[in-house]
Amino acid sequence: MRIAVDAMGGDNAPDEIISGAMESISLLNEDDELILVGPEAVIKPRLSSLKSRNKGAISVVDAPEIIGMDEAPIESLRKKVKSSIAVMAKLAKNGHTDAVISAGNTGACVAAFQMRMRNLPGVNRPGIAVVFPTFEGPVTICDVGANISCKPINLYQYAVMASMYSKHLLGIEKPRVGLMSIGAEDAKGNEVVKKAREMMKSDPNINFIGNIEGRDIFKGVCDVAVCEGFVGNVILKLTEGLVDGLFKAIKHELIAEKLQLAMKFKPVIARIYKKYDYNEYGGALLLGVNGTSLICHGSSQSGTIKNAILASKKYYTNKINEKIVEYLSSTSVKASDEQAN
Amino acid sequence: MRIAVDAMGGDNAPDEIISGAMESISLLNEDDELILVGPEAVIKPRLSSLKSRNKGAISVVDAPEIIGMDEAPIESLRKKVKSSIAVMAKLAKNGHTDAVISAGNTGACVAAFQMRMRNLPGVNRPGIAVVFPTFEGPVTICDVGANISCKPINLYQYAVMASMYSKHLLGIEKPRVGLMSIGAEDAKGNEVVKKAREMMKSDPNINFIGNIEGRDIFKGVCDVAVCEGFVGNVILKLTEGLVDGLFKAIKHELIAEKLQLAMKFKPVIARIYKKYDYNEYGGALLLGVNGTSLICHGSSQSGTIKNAILASKKYYTNKINEKIVEYLSSTSVKASDEQAN
Repeated sequence: MRIAVDAMGGDNAPDEIISGAMESISLLNEDDELILVGPEAVIKPRLSSLKSRNKGAISVVDAPEIIGMDEAPIESLRKKVKSSIAVMAKLAKNGHTDAVISAGNTGACVAAFQMRMRNLPGVNRPGIAVVFPTFEGPVTICDVGANISCKPINLYQYAVMASMYSKHLLGIEKPRVGLMSIGAEDAKGNEVVKKAREMMKSDPNINFIGNIEGRDIFKGVCDVAVCEGFVGNVILKLTEGLVDGLFKAIKHELIAEKLQLAMKFKPVIARIYKKYDYNEYGGALLLGVNGTSLICHGSSQSGTIKNAILASKKYYTNKINEKIVEYLSSTSVKASDEQAN
Repeated sequence: MRIAVDAMGGDNAPDEIISGAMESISLLNEDDELILVGPEAVIKPRLSSLKSRNKGAISVVDAPEIIGMDEAPIESLRKKVKSSIAVMAKLAKNGHTDAVISAGNTGACVAAFQMRMRNLPGVNRPGIAVVFPTFEGPVTICDVGANISCKPINLYQYAVMASMYSKHLLGIEKPRVGLMSIGAEDAKGNEVVKKAREMMKSDPNINFIGNIEGRDIFKGVCDVAVCEGFVGNVILKLTEGLVDGLFKAIKHELIAEKLQLAMKFKPVIARIYKKYDYNEYGGALLLGVNGTSLICHGSSQSGTIKNAILASKKYYTNKINEKIVEYLSSTSVKASDEQAN
């Protein structure tokens, strides 16, 4: 398998990215190949420390331009055709890599990968899936930002794709799927949600538990939570902000109580961060594109990149895309004419 | 001022509700009047412990039917015309009370109050505002569930109304208003958000800071966060679930570390809950209806009901509704024809 990694993506590029790639080599097969994409002049000197037996496992594809984390996605892609993200997307399009991984500008990644890799047959719109490591187990949330004008068929397909991911990558046999709404009752939700619920209900192969509410994500009632991209993005970022804020408040109170107590609490916080560490899952998967693509957090360090490489390998080896295509070709749930997009 | 309280609303009715009403009396003016709405046979015996000098401050309006917390709002209102919620809404409509307060079925409250009290002149759709007591100060979020098919004009009016609330009830001189989106850049967001942003930007009397993301709610960048009801409802419930889940995880880790440490941490958690206690604000305000209406959490105890009564008094005394009407009549930002609803 060939895995392309954006050497210039994220706040800690290129060092942490290249380190992550190197760390992963011993965990891959001998015939696997890592392709580092970025300015040759930057990458090559950093590979000199590679053990000679690993040299064959890593190649470099030159991409001299860099898209910044805050640049406007579409505009930057248009201007910087030699950026690592643009070059990686092209590699995937031309069949020169089986997977793409980046910790760079998320919007640019999503746009470039969607545009170049195209959709899997039967998929109307790709969605981004992330795994929330909750206190009751991992919950896969889809979509968290690829599609902010969802139609019912999109939500239905997110349920299908995220279930596949949950089953084959996380090992959950019959993932329970919840549809994000504002109340558990069937009548709750907007029109898109109501129609999507009917679609999910009518498919006996989805383990659909009905509507869920925001609080249910942390209650262990579902393994997959489906929502439109705007809502999912708010969920993702709110969670991040709230956890940080809450730990700040706890620390403040502990210090006010007794400095010694705060010191004792430190390893506990560290353990919680480690236990509920989303970096374990490598990154977010762009489900529904014709290829394997992972988008990592901008703050990713080598361990996350390593995990992303291993996750892409697992996704590819488990033929999840093939399973999605097969499922969607045989399901009786189809988009009505006005819903197809 | 006359304040009607739903004696049968919430999980702890009627005892906690009636206690809360009694507790508030000494903090109200002599000519203020509390109207307890519910079955006379249930309420009257519980008032016997009232001190004689307070007897005149509380009256009872009979409403023998009760709408359960899980009943379908519209249907239950239609069937139970003598329910406390329906009777309260009618009191408001007929000018027999200046404020209504309930910890009962939220959906039924919103529907009944909207239907009976009607909108303030100039308001297209009411919105529910809640105050998040964050680590950086209180943030007012509107809407959290009244309106799940928002138009740009609705979001603009939520910014206006929630700013009034933040200024006059929370004492924040020039509340900074953020518009919930999926990125800080102007180009981010769906069409409704983009149009609403233009409206807010064009009004120099709103202290508009632009788009915010989910994480920003806890970062102290804004005092008011505007969003459509579906998103706001997810934010509200997600926060509740995450805080509970996180404390559960911390407790678990602390006990695993040392039981003694967990015991020491207990008062710290208690202090955090007290410090960041949304019950302090009484409840959620239904902004934009022609009257003063507060909807409390179903789990409300007497202290919350007391706070809700005091908040309604402050809202009414500060003439916030009059200020909203005046503001909207003089703003140059108006709904286009296709936006009015």
